[in-house]
Amino acid sequence: MTLTGQSFIAGQWRGNADNGQFFAFCPQTNERHHQPFFNADSGDLDAGILAAQRAFKTYRRVPYSQRAAFLRKIGEEILALGDGLIETTMLETGLPRARLEGERMRTVNQLNAFAAVLEADLAPLALTRQDAADPDRAPVPKPATELRYLPVGVVAVFGASNFPYAFSTLGGDTAAALAAGCPVIVKSHTAHPGTSELMTRAIEQAIRDCQMPDGVFSMIQGTDYALSHQLVGAADVKAVGFTGSLNVAKALFETIHQREEVIPLYGELGSVNPQIILPDYADEQGNVLAKSLAQSLLMGNGQFCTSPGLWLIPHGQTEFESSAMSAINAAPSDTLLTPRILDSFNKAMVALKHNAHVDLLASGEQSQAFHANAHLFACEAEDFIQDASLHEEVFGPSALIVRYRDEAQLLRVVEQLEGQLTASVHATKAEMAVQETLLDELSYKVGRLIFGQMPTGVEVCCSMNHGGPYPSSTDVRSTSVGTQAMTRFLRPLCVQS
Amino acid sequence: MTLTGQSFIAGQWRGNADNGQFFAFCPQTNERHHQPFFNADSGDLDAGILAAQRAFKTYRRVPYSQRAAFLRKIGEEILALGDGLIETTMLETGLPRARLEGERMRTVNQLNAFAAVLEADLAPLALTRQDAADPDRAPVPKPATELRYLPVGVVAVFGASNFPYAFSTLGGDTAAALAAGCPVIVKSHTAHPGTSELMTRAIEQAIRDCQMPDGVFSMIQGTDYALSHQLVGAADVKAVGFTGSLNVAKALFETIHQREEVIPLYGELGSVNPQIILPDYADEQGNVLAKSLAQSLLMGNGQFCTSPGLWLIPHGQTEFESSAMSAINAAPSDTLLTPRILDSFNKAMVALKHNAHVDLLASGEQSQAFHANAHLFACEAEDFIQDASLHEEVFGPSALIVRYRDEAQLLRVVEQLEGQLTASVHATKAEMAVQETLLDELSYKVGRLIFGQMPTGVEVCCSMNHGGPYPSSTDVRSTSVGTQAMTRFLRPLCVQS
Repeated sequence: MTLTGQSFIAGQWRGNADNGQFFAFCPQTNERHHQPFFNADSGDLDAGILAAQRAFKTYRRVPYSQRAAFLRKIGEEILALGDGLIETTMLETGLPRARLEGERMRTVNQLNAFAAVLEADLAPLALTRQDAADPDRAPVPKPATELRYLPVGVVAVFGASNFPYAFSTLGGDTAAALAAGCPVIVKSHTAHPGTSELMTRAIEQAIRDCQMPDGVFSMIQGTDYALSHQLVGAADVKAVGFTGSLNVAKALFETIHQREEVIPLYGELGSVNPQIILPDYADEQGNVLAKSLAQSLLMGNGQFCTSPGLWLIPHGQTEFESSAMSAINAAPSDTLLTPRILDSFNKAMVALKHNAHVDLLASGEQSQAFHANAHLFACEAEDFIQDASLHEEVFGPSALIVRYRDEAQLLRVVEQLEGQLTASVHATKAEMAVQETLLDELSYKVGRLIFGQMPTGVEVCCSMNHGGPYPSSTDVRSTSVGTQAMTRFLRPLCVQS
Repeated sequence: MTLTGQSFIAGQWRGNADNGQFFAFCPQTNERHHQPFFNADSGDLDAGILAAQRAFKTYRRVPYSQRAAFLRKIGEEILALGDGLIETTMLETGLPRARLEGERMRTVNQLNAFAAVLEADLAPLALTRQDAADPDRAPVPKPATELRYLPVGVVAVFGASNFPYAFSTLGGDTAAALAAGCPVIVKSHTAHPGTSELMTRAIEQAIRDCQMPDGVFSMIQGTDYALSHQLVGAADVKAVGFTGSLNVAKALFETIHQREEVIPLYGELGSVNPQIILPDYADEQGNVLAKSLAQSLLMGNGQFCTSPGLWLIPHGQTEFESSAMSAINAAPSDTLLTPRILDSFNKAMVALKHNAHVDLLASGEQSQAFHANAHLFACEAEDFIQDASLHEEVFGPSALIVRYRDEAQLLRVVEQLEGQLTASVHATKAEMAVQETLLDELSYKVGRLIFGQMPTGVEVCCSMNHGGPYPSSTDVRSTSVGTQAMTRFLRPLCVQS
């Protein structure tokens, strides 16, 4: 599809080569694209923020039913982009068609889920609280009080490269913020700027058709980090939705800390998603489980934030290990999302191969020099405990088996873990029943505790939690997936009369 | 009552004069007390934090019914301290007996309210979310998911001088944290260390009787700010409840920002609590309203965080103004909580008297040199808009009348306001009906919007919100009063199976 390369500022497409330009990269050909994207300047961003704050005063008063219709319309317009959207994203991300079609539907469903919450007058969020007046109470009468919820204000959204629809321009954070009544300014991810432009066209049409205020949505293209810092430092911006790396989150935190008013940064950062496999279950199901884990690991070539990167298994599970090795050895290599991610992955593989306490158990064939191939490593629990470098997430198709000797050692490994988005426990019923301490300890390490299932696949539902203790996210109190995500952009108001 | 002057570290009373000592001050005599309190050292605090983290692993698993019994027992033990508590606090704060007896009961009721939430299995918080499994869903089966809530970990509490019971050692934040399952470390307020020691005895007894882990509560005495920073900087501390000034909150934020994991600081800071008085209502009720406002202002000699410090009235309300002036002129002077508060108040009075745009309308007699007497000032709306110094809270018995010329000017004043804990609107029904824009604007400035009532008196109920946009609090999403306060110390966990 034809692209302008411009930013979308409160209803206007703006930008030219004056402020520099950049290009997306095509992982499948390992070459950059020809379409230029123009760096927005600080004046563009200021205009977007000003318009967003103006729009807030209107948009926050739009009745829920109209806000819901707007969200549904955005979804329709995404679908109306047709195959051009999918093809553009395939070129920019290297992700396969089927995966992107699924993700597109998930993104539309997400918008519709928030619309349904609005249509039900927020009832599914169960936020309402009321206390009746008691004029006869002594020594002073009791007033009537009611708890309502207001949108916090303008929201800045930073999308992720690995979910170009569901966690990007019109993804979860944008949908949640718009549902809450907050205007949104998206800093487009430079890995898929064309996708971002097309998505912006979808919301542009929806804004027009639903007669929403122009400033309710802006999208900024640009490679200059200063834009991101300008955005999170702006006084009118009241919350930040972010999906990305710990280092970038820390840099944004620095700027946020300089503000007069410190605002929440909802950063969903990453996780090794430990898989806890207990002995009896490993004996009974090791073969099947190993294949499932390998399959889960290889989804999106290991680029899911819920990818199972750490497998804790009892010593001596040769069948489990050989089954896992077969699956990894047979895995075809594939591209990663960006050259930078590929570079980080390659460096991590070199470091693991040179780590004296780590063995490479299996690796898939690398069919192209710029592909990432699957790797399976193994180490002893004691070495894992000692070596903090092994606790870090490797973004890409790599997993580490940690062999533990007994329950006490397993518990010690779990105690050493940093905060995680998820952990899975694979155990027989009998094993589960006696692991109260392990499960308790694990609960306090994760945002989602999974029994007998893979961590990949995050349901969009009212009881989902996608987040977790630091450093898996920067705000353990909040989810970025599911209808509860709306509450991160709401705040209470007590009305007393 | 006999006091030790020591800190309470995980079941042990510790401290002596080696690390320096300090004394409470008696506002009524304007002299310091003779009882020494010993500065805790960093080793004491470290021991308390370590014990708290250990206790967390036990306390978080205590069944809700036992946790509720513990909270109720704390309340019983507070009452069992008898009149000695009241007398000690009267000496340390200068607050009158009736006020303190009322506050003590409120503090006990607060503990019992959280106990009731626990006894109802958290049902009043309406946190539970469940989604049923659908094994037949295509393309992948839907898992069963359930949202649960876990305590965040060890909580640091900094109490306020103006509510030595309800917002201090065993006040709202401590009660909410203990209810949530979080151990608490209180940095005792240096204005009422004896009160804090007695309150700590109450919880010491409750811990023993209910067989709770020792580390579940520690209380630190000391004047060295380094202790406060050590506390909020400790890795095991996961949230901070704070009631006090913006400057102290900012200093604590600096230390929190240096942490690897940034944690929430729930700071309840202050507010001028604007009173919006519309013309017809002023004409009809001005006389009565002026007396009510003066009475509300004079509660606790103006030292309530919800004290009505800013009265927006139409021009020409001579009856309202003269009625208010009479009430203020007749007000007896009284002590303030600390010499520092008195000093700040006196400086603010000098600044207002020297402000060329501000008139002193009335002042009460000052019967002692160390008393604060009530002051009522007035200025024009335009001058108020121009002069940001007039927007600041004066802690003590002072209010500023701002005279507006028309609705447009009133709206501009409201638009200029900073975030507030509360605002009250005093209007006839007919006036209220046509003020949609004003009410909308005001809603986004406050945490509690009040119709026709005084801001003082914060109900402890499930629909209360005590907090507000910055700088009235540091986290607009959270309340420090009412049973919802428990949620500030909880975080979600999704359990999937």
